[in-house]
Amino acid sequence: MAGVVAQINGKPILIHALFRSNPSRSSSPLSLPPLSWRKGKVTMSCKRSYLASINEDVKAHLKHAIPVREPLAVYEPMHYLTFAAPWNTAPALCVAACELVGGHRSLALPAASALHLMYAASYTHDNLPLQESCRPKSTIHHEYGPNIELLTGDSILPFGLEVLAKSDDPAQNISGRILRVVVEITRSVGSQGMIYGQYLEIESIQSNGCGSCHVEEIERVCEKYEGSLYACAATCGAIMGGGSEEEIEKMRRYGLYVGKIQGMTNRIKGNDKDLVKLVEEMRGLAIKELEGFDEAKVEAFSSFLR
Amino acid sequence: MAGVVAQINGKPILIHALFRSNPSRSSSPLSLPPLSWRKGKVTMSCKRSYLASINEDVKAHLKHAIPVREPLAVYEPMHYLTFAAPWNTAPALCVAACELVGGHRSLALPAASALHLMYAASYTHDNLPLQESCRPKSTIHHEYGPNIELLTGDSILPFGLEVLAKSDDPAQNISGRILRVVVEITRSVGSQGMIYGQYLEIESIQSNGCGSCHVEEIERVCEKYEGSLYACAATCGAIMGGGSEEEIEKMRRYGLYVGKIQGMTNRIKGNDKDLVKLVEEMRGLAIKELEGFDEAKVEAFSSFLR
Repeated sequence: MAGVVAQINGKPILIHALFRSNPSRSSSPLSLPPLSWRKGKVTMSCKRSYLASINEDVKAHLKHAIPVREPLAVYEPMHYLTFAAPWNTAPALCVAACELVGGHRSLALPAASALHLMYAASYTHDNLPLQESCRPKSTIHHEYGPNIELLTGDSILPFGLEVLAKSDDPAQNISGRILRVVVEITRSVGSQGMIYGQYLEIESIQSNGCGSCHVEEIERVCEKYEGSLYACAATCGAIMGGGSEEEIEKMRRYGLYVGKIQGMTNRIKGNDKDLVKLVEEMRGLAIKELEGFDEAKVEAFSSFLR
Repeated sequence: MAGVVAQINGKPILIHALFRSNPSRSSSPLSLPPLSWRKGKVTMSCKRSYLASINEDVKAHLKHAIPVREPLAVYEPMHYLTFAAPWNTAPALCVAACELVGGHRSLALPAASALHLMYAASYTHDNLPLQESCRPKSTIHHEYGPNIELLTGDSILPFGLEVLAKSDDPAQNISGRILRVVVEITRSVGSQGMIYGQYLEIESIQSNGCGSCHVEEIERVCEKYEGSLYACAATCGAIMGGGSEEEIEKMRRYGLYVGKIQGMTNRIKGNDKDLVKLVEEMRGLAIKELEGFDEAKVEAFSSFLR
């Protein structure tokens, strides 16, 4: 997986991993990182450190949750496909939203891990060699046969929810919050969210003969696929952090805009002015949702909008 | 789907639906119903009524949970594939276990519905036309293309957990029980349970060149696939019904034997004496687990052992 490598706290970081929800769709001529990246080097560096520290914590939590253990025939592909899926910023948004409303980071880590696992399951199945498809596939290396990749995707999804449900601690009295997050996640990955976005994408590509789609179609797909994932991430973070209903709904809308921006940016082909304009509008709307929160904490949130 | 039709309370019932976990594997020469069915007509009729009434309630709960609504492109295949999957007795076992430990039926219906949805998702994916497979496939009619069936299976699984998590009622103080059931279900359908059974079945068929498997291999597959499903069903019912830890573990073991019996019976080919003997042993072990429970309620449980 190619990417620009930078040093943060002495550690190499793939820059595109901080910006792209799906590098496999990275053929866009309007390539990230944007101009603002080069202008505000110092400020960005701080923001990237915050994101990088969250990502490290989520990855450590995931590695602990999915050790390579017996039976190897099951856990090796599970471990491999979990970490082969491109890293997106939805888990980090979940943790950041938790901290924004005053919650401790550890409260959001199981939900953030579950979000990456949901995405990894979706990504694994999205790349299965099934008939009658003219959808854009990534060029990922298939380490295992399709039967094993199908089964592994099927096992990653419930495993993510198991990780989340198992984090319940009667002493903390957070069972209600966790169950609410289970409903948010199952809804966002299911038929009202990401899966619906995938249906729309199949439908849209089929009706356009595997050619280009209209801006409205792209927006609808992104609203359901990436929009649902990021809206869910921010909502779950705010719920786990003990945010008020108003804060939770603000985070839901902020996440939705972030997801749509991520999705649309990844789908921009050539000089697609309408899509670029729409992305700009979304950024403005997203920033408005951050009004009223602690300004010092909000600063890091601008990173999600690039 | 062919089957013997009987009348219960004036309603036609497919007899094999009460006995078989997977009618698609019904080519066994040792075909059900067994001799005892013909001997004890009156007693069986009562037991079938109890099972039939549970099945009716679970199906009504499912139909209410998955209405055919907009967007039709998503909900029609979801509804179709949920009810196209063969009906097995795991959801009924869940409800019966709840009632056995003194719980109200309504407490177990969401978990029972979730169990059928997990099985329907697994069944849908099991019948996808993927490469390099020599596994026995059912001859079900594919109403939708493989992409749609893949996505629909992916949406049915989280939907089942959503149905379960949404049943939380703060007034009843059952959040802890529901979270425990989420862990049980995600674990049993995942890499330690049903998925592991499917891995073993692929491995076993590949090493035997798509030919017959050894009794030990069949037992291992059934322990993980059907065993996990039924053990989970009985455990979840006992948890939701407020059973003691001892009752919950008795139900777990009973369910495991029931699942293994179901799985092995469906895989018996010809006059397979070793497998028939093993099934008989399991029946004896299962019945022992019912000792100490209310005898009147236990009577209905013998139906799961046929």
